[in-house]
Amino acid sequence: MRNALIAAIALSTGMLPSAVALADEGQWQPYQMPSIADKLSERGIDIPAKQLADLTSYPMNAVVGLGYCTASFVSPQGLVVTNHHCAYRAIQYNSKKEHNYLADGFLATSKDKEPTAGPNERLYITEAVTDVSEQVKKDIGEEPLKRYENIQANRKALIKECESDDNYRCSVRSFHNGLEYYLIKQLIIRDVRLVYAPPESAGAFGGDIDNYEYPRHSADFTFLRAYVGKDGKPAAFAEDNVPYVPKSYLKINADGVKAGDGVFVAGYPGSTSRYRLTSELKFASDWLYPTLATRYQLRIDTIETMSANDKDVKIKYAGTLAGMANRMKKYNGLLDGFKATDITGIKQSREDDFSAWLAKDAEYQSFQTQFDELETLLVEQRLQRQGRYYFENAQSSTLLSTANKLYRLAKEKQKSDAEREEGYQERDMKMFKARLKRLDSSFAISVDKTLWMQDLEAYLAQDNRVAQLDAMLNEGDSDSEIGLSEKLDALYALSSLTDKDKRLAWMDADAADFETSADPFIRLAVALYPQNMQAEVDAKTLAGKLSKSRPDYMKAVIAYNKANGWPVYPDANGTLRITYGMVDGYQSTDALYKQPFTRLEGITAKHTGEEPFNAPAKLLEAIEAKRYGSHAVETVYQDPASWICRLFSCLDKPESFGSVPVNFLSSVDTTGGNSGSPVFNGKGELVGLNFDSTYEAITKDWFFNPTITRAVHVDIRYILWMMDEVDNAQNLIQELDLVNN
Amino acid sequence: MRNALIAAIALSTGMLPSAVALADEGQWQPYQMPSIADKLSERGIDIPAKQLADLTSYPMNAVVGLGYCTASFVSPQGLVVTNHHCAYRAIQYNSKKEHNYLADGFLATSKDKEPTAGPNERLYITEAVTDVSEQVKKDIGEEPLKRYENIQANRKALIKECESDDNYRCSVRSFHNGLEYYLIKQLIIRDVRLVYAPPESAGAFGGDIDNYEYPRHSADFTFLRAYVGKDGKPAAFAEDNVPYVPKSYLKINADGVKAGDGVFVAGYPGSTSRYRLTSELKFASDWLYPTLATRYQLRIDTIETMSANDKDVKIKYAGTLAGMANRMKKYNGLLDGFKATDITGIKQSREDDFSAWLAKDAEYQSFQTQFDELETLLVEQRLQRQGRYYFENAQSSTLLSTANKLYRLAKEKQKSDAEREEGYQERDMKMFKARLKRLDSSFAISVDKTLWMQDLEAYLAQDNRVAQLDAMLNEGDSDSEIGLSEKLDALYALSSLTDKDKRLAWMDADAADFETSADPFIRLAVALYPQNMQAEVDAKTLAGKLSKSRPDYMKAVIAYNKANGWPVYPDANGTLRITYGMVDGYQSTDALYKQPFTRLEGITAKHTGEEPFNAPAKLLEAIEAKRYGSHAVETVYQDPASWICRLFSCLDKPESFGSVPVNFLSSVDTTGGNSGSPVFNGKGELVGLNFDSTYEAITKDWFFNPTITRAVHVDIRYILWMMDEVDNAQNLIQELDLVNN
Repeated sequence: MRNALIAAIALSTGMLPSAVALADEGQWQPYQMPSIADKLSERGIDIPAKQLADLTSYPMNAVVGLGYCTASFVSPQGLVVTNHHCAYRAIQYNSKKEHNYLADGFLATSKDKEPTAGPNERLYITEAVTDVSEQVKKDIGEEPLKRYENIQANRKALIKECESDDNYRCSVRSFHNGLEYYLIKQLIIRDVRLVYAPPESAGAFGGDIDNYEYPRHSADFTFLRAYVGKDGKPAAFAEDNVPYVPKSYLKINADGVKAGDGVFVAGYPGSTSRYRLTSELKFASDWLYPTLATRYQLRIDTIETMSANDKDVKIKYAGTLAGMANRMKKYNGLLDGFKATDITGIKQSREDDFSAWLAKDAEYQSFQTQFDELETLLVEQRLQRQGRYYFENAQSSTLLSTANKLYRLAKEKQKSDAEREEGYQERDMKMFKARLKRLDSSFAISVDKTLWMQDLEAYLAQDNRVAQLDAMLNEGDSDSEIGLSEKLDALYALSSLTDKDKRLAWMDADAADFETSADPFIRLAVALYPQNMQAEVDAKTLAGKLSKSRPDYMKAVIAYNKANGWPVYPDANGTLRITYGMVDGYQSTDALYKQPFTRLEGITAKHTGEEPFNAPAKLLEAIEAKRYGSHAVETVYQDPASWICRLFSCLDKPESFGSVPVNFLSSVDTTGGNSGSPVFNGKGELVGLNFDSTYEAITKDWFFNPTITRAVHVDIRYILWMMDEVDNAQNLIQELDLVNN
Repeated sequence: MRNALIAAIALSTGMLPSAVALADEGQWQPYQMPSIADKLSERGIDIPAKQLADLTSYPMNAVVGLGYCTASFVSPQGLVVTNHHCAYRAIQYNSKKEHNYLADGFLATSKDKEPTAGPNERLYITEAVTDVSEQVKKDIGEEPLKRYENIQANRKALIKECESDDNYRCSVRSFHNGLEYYLIKQLIIRDVRLVYAPPESAGAFGGDIDNYEYPRHSADFTFLRAYVGKDGKPAAFAEDNVPYVPKSYLKINADGVKAGDGVFVAGYPGSTSRYRLTSELKFASDWLYPTLATRYQLRIDTIETMSANDKDVKIKYAGTLAGMANRMKKYNGLLDGFKATDITGIKQSREDDFSAWLAKDAEYQSFQTQFDELETLLVEQRLQRQGRYYFENAQSSTLLSTANKLYRLAKEKQKSDAEREEGYQERDMKMFKARLKRLDSSFAISVDKTLWMQDLEAYLAQDNRVAQLDAMLNEGDSDSEIGLSEKLDALYALSSLTDKDKRLAWMDADAADFETSADPFIRLAVALYPQNMQAEVDAKTLAGKLSKSRPDYMKAVIAYNKANGWPVYPDANGTLRITYGMVDGYQSTDALYKQPFTRLEGITAKHTGEEPFNAPAKLLEAIEAKRYGSHAVETVYQDPASWICRLFSCLDKPESFGSVPVNFLSSVDTTGGNSGSPVFNGKGELVGLNFDSTYEAITKDWFFNPTITRAVHVDIRYILWMMDEVDNAQNLIQELDLVNN
């Protein structure tokens, strides 16, 4: 009945049955695209799947990483667009008392007015992805710790070979939990400049309250520009560097998309856990997330209280706090999501099914033993994690963790570069130094001490103690009655690590210098080193064991999924992926339907004049005056369906949409790291920027539920409208390659 | 373009263009129905308009009033259905420690098990409505107070003549602010019994939190039964009374309605202010509502605190508190609504337009003077209201207001019955006595005193004082240092009004008895009498003036509205009205669409186990087991539109509705008093019970905004499902006249 009706309607209205909602799960490796070509074309994505698989051609060679976000080239002069929240650090870096770009926004009216985004901003362009599974697993042996170390050695050798040129960053990433390894080669752009950012009150309109929520009205975009040396090669910031000419840059479709249109998103999703075992999910939902959430909330409350009374603290910790609030909402979303849907039950029943399948399958029968072994290892892993939890937190002081890293560096330097731990090799030293340098910009002794003391008190309140730390904390107790707080004050007062130059000088010190130092944080780092190293060896040994069990398990799971006709894509791991879906609203709760597009007038309706609902006056004025320019649309629904729906007032007000679309929803499969990702229409033209997903969908990191999983995007029409009607960024508009439907 | 498309779609799908949303404003007098016959038939309401105008035939003669709510006959044996919250008092009356019907629900499995709903429950059947404008306005003169009194005398004479028989209640109601008067003749059923009520946890599921909200999941229904003497005539409760045989009873359509279906609602809306002037709206929004809201919130908080510690108080004040919470949310909704929409601005611009029209219209030019005069009188009215506010509140003690009424009765008795004030005539004595009797059931000295003291403190904190009250409050001050609280304690301790028999005895006392009484509340009533009477005379004098200005103003407004083609219906005044509309969702905020039907599963999703989201276990079990019986529906949308919408996931989940509809929305125009009103399909069959309207629409009492105004109804399918699958009320189902589409 249903199919017949759909067919009949499709026929009579000229619509394709493809518009029927499908489950769009999958964060696909680009090379996999041809294998899902039929699904893409069902969604109306017409750009050839083969083209999407090719990282050297349009549009994939215009997609760049920011390390923690995604961006894309949008002009032949290296103009890059990403989220406001991804460029937050760059805007903050340029915000001074005399010109607060965070508060007021920023627009460079010509290239010579584009300031550096800061010495540590980087753009990464993925140029090649090579399967190196065989090389990584070559001669790694069976002894767990050795096995782990051999894998690392093989990875590092591959990286070293790949990084022949300073302008490249290479990495070897594990896919399917160690079943496969890929070598990723990325060109590094080191001179990144700030071009155009809206005020935070528009870019982060709704703030933490609206974060992960929908309906949403966020101008979460910022333009940066890539610069290179005059020879066209990447270079550090220099006045006379020139704009980078990207291999390609994205066409921008000024007409945007409509509900029902197929879209795809390319970017660098950070991490998902969809192939994790039910026991791991249970640990996360029952112990890990509740524990982390409690500590996080305390830290957030503390920083907020201290910020309220100290402007310096407020500025320094603004970025930290934004990140923590975001993470906190994610924890809450995860915990709420686990309450709302019995994901553990669903996963358990799938796992039971998998076990039954294993038992019946001739080829994979034997894998049940490995499965059981894996469960045993996971028990060990959980005990390690819980055992280390308080001791690790007890080292949360920024100065202590800096001291830990510096001493570790001195110890690692005793080895050959190839043998050193990742993060401590010569290739890492620039970033290492940069982090040491910028520490002051987000550090205040008062806050660091208060947060650390909270962690120390929690550590002292439990039994899993480390003698060296206890000794340090008890020092001087016999002499006087001084409390923990005073002791910590003394540590900070005596430490030289708060001095940037002295801090940097420790990079060149050798281990003996540390071991004889009187700096209290250095002393503590030296004292705790053996315990920290033992924990690391334990973890590596376990990882060595898991490096055998997990891939075996994954092999069987993949076979099982394929047998069921389910999609098989690896968990997110910070590498370039493509996800597709369609522009679509969703059923939020019973009788509450969230429509796919928001409009300008929704900003005015939400505006209270109080943060975070305090939209810029110039923006409100343009809305009030209905100064839509060419960016308003009559309807955001594919005709004629919109008319039918309107006939039943099932979608919109009786009037047409008649405004500029602000944010929109699609069913693509994203996660953290996808922020700033270009959203493409079916022709591969830019139609928006991904920036968030809905609260109900936060558990998607563990389980993808297609009925409630929606990603939230900034509509390209809102970005163009802001440029055109609010900020008069005509100089930038002229650079863009604007096309229409 | 739009119309062409609609026509094309209508043609291809067989739908009527009538489904296009119309503004369904209007609480129509039944006699007006033929004048809007074309609009009704556009909505698919096929029952002849003429039939709806006839109060002596189906379905209007099955609609009955409860005094404060509406109900309807649904069986030949006098079975009546109304809202749970309308029957609250009846359920409360029967709830004892040993059987708590409020908590557990109640079902009489046979007629002999139907307890009385209480001695004061009445059903009113409107039998005739006659225009008596001429008679009321005959020889009333020009002198304001006389004019007022003459109008009252004429009204009373008409009532007396009409109430020839004890079994009838008559009233003369003002329409269009005194432009017209109608005589309403109602048959009174005095023996009402409780038949079937769900537990409060289902009947008021969501409680105050969900009140005025949507999506909603309330089983807000209760069945009562009308009994009469063996001779078929109304009689007070007696064991051997027999079920009343109504002239007609409603057919019930077990298939309910779908979105887009036309519906109409008949009932007794209490009061609206749509024809009030902008200055009146401004007074209400800027002073009256904020002032009342502040006092109400204090009273609610006080009763809640006192209820928490005292089970007796909790039971006694449950009804009061429910009513107050409801009223409080209405105040908040009004204040929020005035903030969200500039209704004052809209009304002012209409009024400006009206003035401009007046100036141009030859016939109505002269009315501008009356309009100006009316504004002057309204200033006076506002000053009166503000001036009396604190003194009136200072008499809020239940015992003082009882004493006031009793002394007033003694004074009125000095006149002939015809000359007495309304409320103090012989015809009123039964109700007067009943109220005196039932006082104890919702009265506790502790609460009464605390609330009164709050009002007295507010009175004492301002300058508008009354010497007699001040004297009473200062009494004894010279002797000692006792505070207000102790003084009030003494008043309560010394009063005999807390004793039911003594209270009732005062009904037969004459004025001199009062004037020599030592009862402190009686003494206070006697002392304050002159001041209260003066205030009344002032108010009556003003009313006399307004009785000329307002009708003149209304005459011009009606002419103006008609000239603009706008609907002309009188403000609600507690008389029988009909409103029509269609089943429809609405746009709540930008990108948030509220769908017209909720489903059983929404109850489970909202259920937390904590009041007010603590659904009965038997109900949850039936949902969990998907025991839908014959009451589930595949779709709640008119086919095939629903399929089109689903194709675009614009309405529902990809799956079909597939559940029992619980509550639904329509665009009918209702207000307080419409609770319990039957909701009819286009054939005049019962498909639901009206019980609420949405928060955004609360300002509709002042201004009807068709895009956000929706009424909330209990779906008949939910009621039948509860009877069938949850409570096994087969005995009642058999009584009903169930029909199908």
